[in-house]
Amino acid sequence: MPRIKMIIEYDGSNYHGFQRQDNAHTIQAELEKQIHTLTGEDITVRSAGRTDAGVHARGQVIAFDTAATIPADRWFQALNSLLPPDIRALNSCEVNHSFHPQYQAVSKRYLYYLYRPRWGVVFYRHYAYSVREPLDIAAMNHSCRLIKGVHNFKAFCASGSSVKTFEREVLHCEIKESGPFAYLDIEANGFLYNMVRIIMGTLLLVGCYRIPAVDVAKIIQSRDRTIAGPTAPAHGLYLHSVRY
Amino acid sequence: MPRIKMIIEYDGSNYHGFQRQDNAHTIQAELEKQIHTLTGEDITVRSAGRTDAGVHARGQVIAFDTAATIPADRWFQALNSLLPPDIRALNSCEVNHSFHPQYQAVSKRYLYYLYRPRWGVVFYRHYAYSVREPLDIAAMNHSCRLIKGVHNFKAFCASGSSVKTFEREVLHCEIKESGPFAYLDIEANGFLYNMVRIIMGTLLLVGCYRIPAVDVAKIIQSRDRTIAGPTAPAHGLYLHSVRY
Repeated sequence: MPRIKMIIEYDGSNYHGFQRQDNAHTIQAELEKQIHTLTGEDITVRSAGRTDAGVHARGQVIAFDTAATIPADRWFQALNSLLPPDIRALNSCEVNHSFHPQYQAVSKRYLYYLYRPRWGVVFYRHYAYSVREPLDIAAMNHSCRLIKGVHNFKAFCASGSSVKTFEREVLHCEIKESGPFAYLDIEANGFLYNMVRIIMGTLLLVGCYRIPAVDVAKIIQSRDRTIAGPTAPAHGLYLHSVRY
Repeated sequence: MPRIKMIIEYDGSNYHGFQRQDNAHTIQAELEKQIHTLTGEDITVRSAGRTDAGVHARGQVIAFDTAATIPADRWFQALNSLLPPDIRALNSCEVNHSFHPQYQAVSKRYLYYLYRPRWGVVFYRHYAYSVREPLDIAAMNHSCRLIKGVHNFKAFCASGSSVKTFEREVLHCEIKESGPFAYLDIEANGFLYNMVRIIMGTLLLVGCYRIPAVDVAKIIQSRDRTIAGPTAPAHGLYLHSVRY
């Protein structure tokens, strides 16, 4: 059976995250349901990473095996004809059976959007985290440079996570500005549970002058979740892309 | 009783337009309900213009009379504490009793957003009209210059409208580009029913090479709705601001 790889984007606002769950509306369940409608097959869709409720994706990568005769490069259009308007497939191709969207990922890139409102809050309420206080972007970028590199990120991992190691390499970490928005652009070889949202929450403490920029080094060294900042809300977060 | 003027913005996606209607969720009904919660008064909210279902506002102007002791410049904050997140009051002040948000308006400005997608369609599906065909912006702006000025706009008025005169003065009409967006920026001393959306639908025929740019002059002269283009969908339209 050919394995199809597909890049999808979704507005996570109306979903209980990516992963299939009983009695919950999820991205995975919607994809599997529509693939079933198309082919009659009961397949499992694998993804590069599970996104939480309210988190968006611009470039989520999925893969699944199918015996259907739909040409690989037409799969995304076939699926789009059935998907709801808040999930779109952007392209599709055939990959070999060694491909797994999560395990083969070399790095993932997330964006976290902040909105500094004068007006327009109603239009971005699901798509960016509204921050009224002025932000010291230079200080936040100072902290970003401390986050870059190989570290034990246990302080930035939600408790209850059962991973083997908390060591990850952050390849890129930067706050950029774009009109009324500021966004965190972060790429790593892997992310711990809630890592981007806790980093964002900590950077906001720096940006609002609650803690000095250099304290981020101490927070990393502490390996203590309670020393880091709060978990920023889900709706500002986007899985931007995955590299293989 | 003091008269309060307020500027509000709203995401029209989940409303059946501005105007109060039986058994329908509307902006006016929501405002009147929350003012009642705040003051116990049964007041009527007047607006600069009724927006249709799905149409947004960045700068709708409302006014109402109230005997409540809330200071005029705090009214918007008091109301925001009760309004749902898709309606925000931006400011408030007291005006004299001759002020009527619709009748005193000198001009209104609307924006109509088009989105030329590569990706991101899921995020803009309620906020911009997605157009896949390449657009000839220069040709559209040629037509815009023909629309400017004093004309009988009957060809751009939805049938069934019971206005006295179809003559309006378009003060500004231009297509602008901004990243993946193009938007119509149009200001007039008044608008006929669906006028902006029919102008947009007609400009899209020009932009997609279906009719020559100069034909817009003939369409205006025809005074015939059936000669103009289709009514562009509501969700790209924003009431931007009102001048007094």
